[in-house]
Amino acid sequence: MKKITVIRTDLPDKFGLPRQSGLVPELRGRIVFEPEYRNPDALRGIEGFSHIWIIWQFSRNMNSKWSPTVRPPRLGGDTRMGVFATRSPFRPNPLGLSCVKLEAVRIGKDGPELEVSGIDMADNTPIYDIKPYLPYTDSHPDALSGFAGDYTDYGLQVSASDELISIVPPEHRKALFGILSNDPRPSYQHDDERIYGLSFAGFNIKFTVSGSLLTVREITPSDENVK
Amino acid sequence: MKKITVIRTDLPDKFGLPRQSGLVPELRGRIVFEPEYRNPDALRGIEGFSHIWIIWQFSRNMNSKWSPTVRPPRLGGDTRMGVFATRSPFRPNPLGLSCVKLEAVRIGKDGPELEVSGIDMADNTPIYDIKPYLPYTDSHPDALSGFAGDYTDYGLQVSASDELISIVPPEHRKALFGILSNDPRPSYQHDDERIYGLSFAGFNIKFTVSGSLLTVREITPSDENVK
Repeated sequence: MKKITVIRTDLPDKFGLPRQSGLVPELRGRIVFEPEYRNPDALRGIEGFSHIWIIWQFSRNMNSKWSPTVRPPRLGGDTRMGVFATRSPFRPNPLGLSCVKLEAVRIGKDGPELEVSGIDMADNTPIYDIKPYLPYTDSHPDALSGFAGDYTDYGLQVSASDELISIVPPEHRKALFGILSNDPRPSYQHDDERIYGLSFAGFNIKFTVSGSLLTVREITPSDENVK
Repeated sequence: MKKITVIRTDLPDKFGLPRQSGLVPELRGRIVFEPEYRNPDALRGIEGFSHIWIIWQFSRNMNSKWSPTVRPPRLGGDTRMGVFATRSPFRPNPLGLSCVKLEAVRIGKDGPELEVSGIDMADNTPIYDIKPYLPYTDSHPDALSGFAGDYTDYGLQVSASDELISIVPPEHRKALFGILSNDPRPSYQHDDERIYGLSFAGFNIKFTVSGSLLTVREITPSDENVK
């Protein structure tokens, strides 16, 4: 399996990644091809599609063994489901599947690149394949989604002072709020006192959660060079 | 990349495969797990989903080199598009992506198995991953599908005498008509005289095509042991 591209995103770590694609529509990524695949011809016609599939490597979980059952975060973390009934990364083959919106196709300094939104991948995640989204075969709005269906309107209220938020460039603010309201905590942790740290777009964001309210406590520039 | 399962289908060859999943809803397959993965726990909860994703290996195209551009059959076979703008098998990594309907989960003589419909895979195709279909992240009915969008209502009229059709067991007839009406020919071939041969469910089916009419000429049992 060859690495075709990587995706550059504002999330250097696993912590803070949306749990599925599309959950944070403002979260963008840039797909940059490996030297061998930097051929604009290979993308001819892709600009006509509004969405694309990305098949990628769960590169942040490569040393974990797969388990026949996993505990989906949205079931509270104490109910076990079969791994093939979930999108958990702890699977026999470390393949992730994401549907993202195609925002732009352009030629950058490293050849052709795709700008996408609604991503759920960490920075530098390897990508194995890109396919167009075909609604006639891929879209099933009435599909039944078992135990996963009842947990989509879950979200936290996010509170952050104007002073703190002013540190983050305006173009990143909506994505940051989206990430936080999706509740990045492991679902089995419910400690009001605990301070969590998130790396995003070159900042360290510290926050606490009490009930359904997330409060941002501190935002500082990080040294990491992101995106 | 490990082979997790194979899918047993009624199509031993590449010829006749629907060009996408879901195009022939009556076409069924049986997903049988490799010994290492025959654990019913790994499927716990999957029965609540109406559709599942299959990420599989384009095993019938393993010796073909990938090409930056391909000629989509529905564009008539003479227009080249970028491989990443198509679902062509001739890609850098031989990964297929199919959305199929989950008809049944059961324990067979080879452990747990999934019966699915709307398949587009040849018999014994290796499968790398199975994931539940989540409409909230996977379903985008209004997605724009570029050049691929205008070719979904293409189909042939299929003519076959009752005498010929009576050879095929009733449960296979709708799938056979579905396969034929989807026009299995390579799109650059338009020779009224040519007799095509399709292997399906233990039968050899011979047919010709003139304009938009496909005529079945012969149906004979094959020696191959299918499904």
